[in-house]
Amino acid sequence: MSNKTATIVGAGLVGSLWAVYLSKAGYKVTIVERRPDIRKADISAGKSINLALSTRGWKALDTVGVGDEIRKMAIPMYGRMMHDLQGNLSYQPYGKEGQAIFSVSRGGLNAKMMDIAEQVGNAQIFYNERCTGVDLEKGIVYTEHSETKEKKVYHSDVVFAADGAFSAVRYNSMQTLDRFDYSQKYIEDGYREILLPANSDGSYPLEKNALHIWPRGRFMLIALANENGSFTCTLFMPMKGEKSFERLKTKADVNEFFQTTFPDFYKMMPNIADAWENHPLSALAIIRCYPWTHGKTALMGDAAHATVPFYGQGMNCGFEDCTVMWELMQKHKEDWPKVFEEYQILRKPDGDGVQDLSLQNYHVMRDYVADPMFQLQKKIEARFSEKHPDKWMPVYSQVTFSHIRYSDAFKAGNRQDEIMKAVMAKFPDIEKVWDSEEVEKEILKSI
Amino acid sequence: MSNKTATIVGAGLVGSLWAVYLSKAGYKVTIVERRPDIRKADISAGKSINLALSTRGWKALDTVGVGDEIRKMAIPMYGRMMHDLQGNLSYQPYGKEGQAIFSVSRGGLNAKMMDIAEQVGNAQIFYNERCTGVDLEKGIVYTEHSETKEKKVYHSDVVFAADGAFSAVRYNSMQTLDRFDYSQKYIEDGYREILLPANSDGSYPLEKNALHIWPRGRFMLIALANENGSFTCTLFMPMKGEKSFERLKTKADVNEFFQTTFPDFYKMMPNIADAWENHPLSALAIIRCYPWTHGKTALMGDAAHATVPFYGQGMNCGFEDCTVMWELMQKHKEDWPKVFEEYQILRKPDGDGVQDLSLQNYHVMRDYVADPMFQLQKKIEARFSEKHPDKWMPVYSQVTFSHIRYSDAFKAGNRQDEIMKAVMAKFPDIEKVWDSEEVEKEILKSI
Repeated sequence: MSNKTATIVGAGLVGSLWAVYLSKAGYKVTIVERRPDIRKADISAGKSINLALSTRGWKALDTVGVGDEIRKMAIPMYGRMMHDLQGNLSYQPYGKEGQAIFSVSRGGLNAKMMDIAEQVGNAQIFYNERCTGVDLEKGIVYTEHSETKEKKVYHSDVVFAADGAFSAVRYNSMQTLDRFDYSQKYIEDGYREILLPANSDGSYPLEKNALHIWPRGRFMLIALANENGSFTCTLFMPMKGEKSFERLKTKADVNEFFQTTFPDFYKMMPNIADAWENHPLSALAIIRCYPWTHGKTALMGDAAHATVPFYGQGMNCGFEDCTVMWELMQKHKEDWPKVFEEYQILRKPDGDGVQDLSLQNYHVMRDYVADPMFQLQKKIEARFSEKHPDKWMPVYSQVTFSHIRYSDAFKAGNRQDEIMKAVMAKFPDIEKVWDSEEVEKEILKSI
Repeated sequence: MSNKTATIVGAGLVGSLWAVYLSKAGYKVTIVERRPDIRKADISAGKSINLALSTRGWKALDTVGVGDEIRKMAIPMYGRMMHDLQGNLSYQPYGKEGQAIFSVSRGGLNAKMMDIAEQVGNAQIFYNERCTGVDLEKGIVYTEHSETKEKKVYHSDVVFAADGAFSAVRYNSMQTLDRFDYSQKYIEDGYREILLPANSDGSYPLEKNALHIWPRGRFMLIALANENGSFTCTLFMPMKGEKSFERLKTKADVNEFFQTTFPDFYKMMPNIADAWENHPLSALAIIRCYPWTHGKTALMGDAAHATVPFYGQGMNCGFEDCTVMWELMQKHKEDWPKVFEEYQILRKPDGDGVQDLSLQNYHVMRDYVADPMFQLQKKIEARFSEKHPDKWMPVYSQVTFSHIRYSDAFKAGNRQDEIMKAVMAKFPDIEKVWDSEEVEKEILKSI
């Protein structure tokens, strides 16, 4: 029997999954978690948020054999369904035939991942323990119980901080290190979640196997299906300004806003204003830092690279951190200083990459998604990629349906965009000739 | 008698000066300071750093009538004296005849400013009190005594955090606010201070009224005169890498480095290796954040916009914060919510501006200062500015000898640079014709 030990701060998605990996390598894993056990408590307001699992996430789950357990609770979404102001629908597949992203409830997934961490990972999880600091070099985690105020000390061979965007390990211990680079940058938009209930017969009020979007320029509403017939919807809009959350103060404001902006949604949910305050208004930030490791301690997931949700890659990227760390554990035979050094050098560009991609998609959704030229460009790209799959993989597919590094996908996407803009500029009648052989040849020449 | 009250966190340069302003407006001022009273303790190692007071700083001091007291301890530097590898000297004046920046000892200035805060500002300073948090909206400052651990609570009408680059108010209270943008970014270089003693007869070993620079590409040494005949010298170089602080480990390393890189300096100070470890190695960072105010609390100086020292403007900018806040106090008749709102909106671009200028000068000093084309450009600019002072004020003068906003000076400097690069590119023989009428006309056309 080995006596290797690891402490993980945070029993969220990444922390719970990483426990399974460590256990597989023979580590006795302890997890300390600030919140109470969500499996015993009612899931609190605002925690109904849904996530979109995609290829990178599945790989990380399947590598330790827990993917199938999650597939049971995941609903495939094969494309996006756009709702215009008149209630007309248009549909765009996400990838090739059969390719999908998967809607999962964050709360449900987290509870299942905790079960897996305990049952498959033999991890012991201590709840209500706030991390007050870490001796990063010695691998000692200090906690305080949120109710009893009891203080505890955990010693182990390695420590992993998977404690989220506002990581206590990073704030209390890494940020005070000499020469630690750090930034938190909020975007203008915030979000509020709305639960669209199932029909009275339990059926879905909207197509189940699509991600629904109501794009309205400066703000948008999205909806992802839950297992019970309901949809978790998220409204993104500016926190302040002319059309913003701060202007929606009364029930009348909310009703008027939904009636005029999302009339088909309002018809399904005429009591929207009643539910309005149930879900808290949340802010959105990009958090970057470096280094990600110090001594015996490493940051993983949102603690290292929290991003905005516009590419649906936050969790997938956090799960991929596990894949990467695991491969490096094999490569360096668990020589942790070497593992940590290569982990942060290799992975930091991809943390930046997923953030750059997410921010770019935020601007695309904000400013370009309704632009006919942008839509035409995407149509030409899709057609070209279909004909020449070996020569052109759309950036969305690179991010969502491949294991290409985020940093490389970001660069490739920018290159594709340059090529397409140049090609389209060469044809004044591009709207008419977009699927012609000349355009195809021009792209082939430009690649 | 008024019963208006203010608490300032930090008895540094900005906090001490701001106390005088507040007192002038009738506030009873309390200052809490983390460190012991430097006037009673020996000035600790590494605190010998010298600062360059320039026009903005003098204005802030003179507005409350304390400039003359500081002039007594300030040594004018009319230009920079460059030392090449052979020990040859070259001299560049900073501005027009009589314009100077002024060398002052940080420790000496701070002690004097504390005297002034107490005597002129009637401020009460409490030492060894660490700020553990601020109720930003209520204006309550919480402190803990560093030795006795006694906890204290200060209530006042307004609170000012002038507690430096690693502001406890910002870290403990502002950074946890929702939607607080924050970044700390370290540059590659660090610095170490060296005290070059006076000659045995008390005279200066170098020209007193100049700022001395030994520019050596990727690293440089500077020296500023002290009142007692000594010079405070600062060596800037990368923290890590081929030629870096981490490579200077032994006395032999240090001797060899100075002998080959700064031979004329080494001759003056052959015992440099003995003094090497006396002064700590320090890192350099740019710290940005926003908002700067919340409720009854405002950040000032380095707490709001700490910068790297390559333009000599950190203190001057902090002092100018006082000028700006003071003008807004008059404008809004001490309606603090209005004062704070305008202060942060007006002043944030200039905090960014002084940082952008400092970073740019860091790159100039690192990469361009030894470039003959760059030197030629500066020579042409100087000549043109001399002929057309109404049309061209060099960016260095805008920053150092004017009250032009930092943000405007930064933009003007970039515009000047564009013009000069374009003009110089038009003359293949620019080295020969640099002071010709054609070049002058070309610049006149481009402005």
